[in-house]
Amino acid sequence: MDCRLSRAKQHIRYSLNYKNIPFETVWIEYPDIADFCKKVGAAPTATRRDSSLLYTLPVIRDPSTGTVLSDSPGIAVYLDNTYPDRPTLFPPGTKGLHAVFKPALFSVLDELYDFTLPASNAILNPKSEAYFRSTREKAFGKKIEDITPKGEDRVKHWRKVENGFGIVDGWYAKGGGTYIMGDVPCFADIEIISWLQYVKVTLGEDSQEWKDIRSWNNGRWAKLFDSFVKYE
Amino acid sequence: MDCRLSRAKQHIRYSLNYKNIPFETVWIEYPDIADFCKKVGAAPTATRRDSSLLYTLPVIRDPSTGTVLSDSPGIAVYLDNTYPDRPTLFPPGTKGLHAVFKPALFSVLDELYDFTLPASNAILNPKSEAYFRSTREKAFGKKIEDITPKGEDRVKHWRKVENGFGIVDGWYAKGGGTYIMGDVPCFADIEIISWLQYVKVTLGEDSQEWKDIRSWNNGRWAKLFDSFVKYE
Repeated sequence: MDCRLSRAKQHIRYSLNYKNIPFETVWIEYPDIADFCKKVGAAPTATRRDSSLLYTLPVIRDPSTGTVLSDSPGIAVYLDNTYPDRPTLFPPGTKGLHAVFKPALFSVLDELYDFTLPASNAILNPKSEAYFRSTREKAFGKKIEDITPKGEDRVKHWRKVENGFGIVDGWYAKGGGTYIMGDVPCFADIEIISWLQYVKVTLGEDSQEWKDIRSWNNGRWAKLFDSFVKYE
Repeated sequence: MDCRLSRAKQHIRYSLNYKNIPFETVWIEYPDIADFCKKVGAAPTATRRDSSLLYTLPVIRDPSTGTVLSDSPGIAVYLDNTYPDRPTLFPPGTKGLHAVFKPALFSVLDELYDFTLPASNAILNPKSEAYFRSTREKAFGKKIEDITPKGEDRVKHWRKVENGFGIVDGWYAKGGGTYIMGDVPCFADIEIISWLQYVKVTLGEDSQEWKDIRSWNNGRWAKLFDSFVKYE
């Protein structure tokens, strides 16, 4: 499979590897995403407040079917439908419950962005950095370096992230296994693993934040993340 | 099964009927709940801000095992574990995803309480009414009759409820069936059906609100609710 993937969210990469579907990655800088999507025929995934269309990665092109798709949950569903003989991302009957999972996860881990966003900007290539900075500074109404709180505020903010992971830990505890559905992974787990990977890449594996997360909830996130290293 | 159930939330009643487990209901007025729970040995389900223990219904007592349980998700899990030969409330692997569903549902339908709470108070017996009024007025900091917004505010508030149902409709649409997991119900569906029943009982089946909800999302909620009338 010929596959274009976003830098930050690794879930389609993990999904393809988990399903054992070979792929190539094409690197696209931020300012080139819209033109690239139009060129390959990938639909916009949202509409901005000013009514302009928003094009986002990941995008896949499957040469075996000619399908071009944007929007990551849609891609994951496509992969399950097209390659049903491979390990499944959405076990039967769980697409609706998966649709609940993603916004619920984002709402409890929302504060994490305030740490990863500036760190993510700092490791971009210059062309992407300029684009990323200008769009994010407009959205947040402040300099990108000021998005992560400082001093005592930072400590409090990080505690909110810890509380958020604590809530997700409660969901997993009900499931009773390493994965939300028990002993077999599904796309919901990959959503979290991708966030963890994003934290590791942006803040660095030597950062206190990464060490903190690995230690929280009796090492649940370290164990979950490490179980997917083979699918990176 | 000898079974004590709350007036408002009908999910354990639906669950027992869905699993075809016979039961008796005992009616408990609000001010008597705590003493009743202590007497039968049902654990408190939460701690109040002032550190006092909160006892809530539903509570079940299963004479075939001697088990007494409070906390409705715990009861539902117990019923599946104890009666695995009956229709299942939590299909295999979905307990974790169910734990995500309930708070996500409550957060998007939150505004519905502002309509049902005063209506619910109005149909209580005098003994319960006094208790319900004093605890809820303390929590909301206003007279119970003032909780439902009036005039244009009411219209806007009701639109938020409609938007909330629209979000839940999006989850169901991904599932692709009448139920969140497709063609077979699970405890998540029963959570919603119980809310619908609560609206129908408190606001009345001739109310505009009940008619609105039945009409929303191409009749999805009417169809879902009606499919469970046989388990009331």
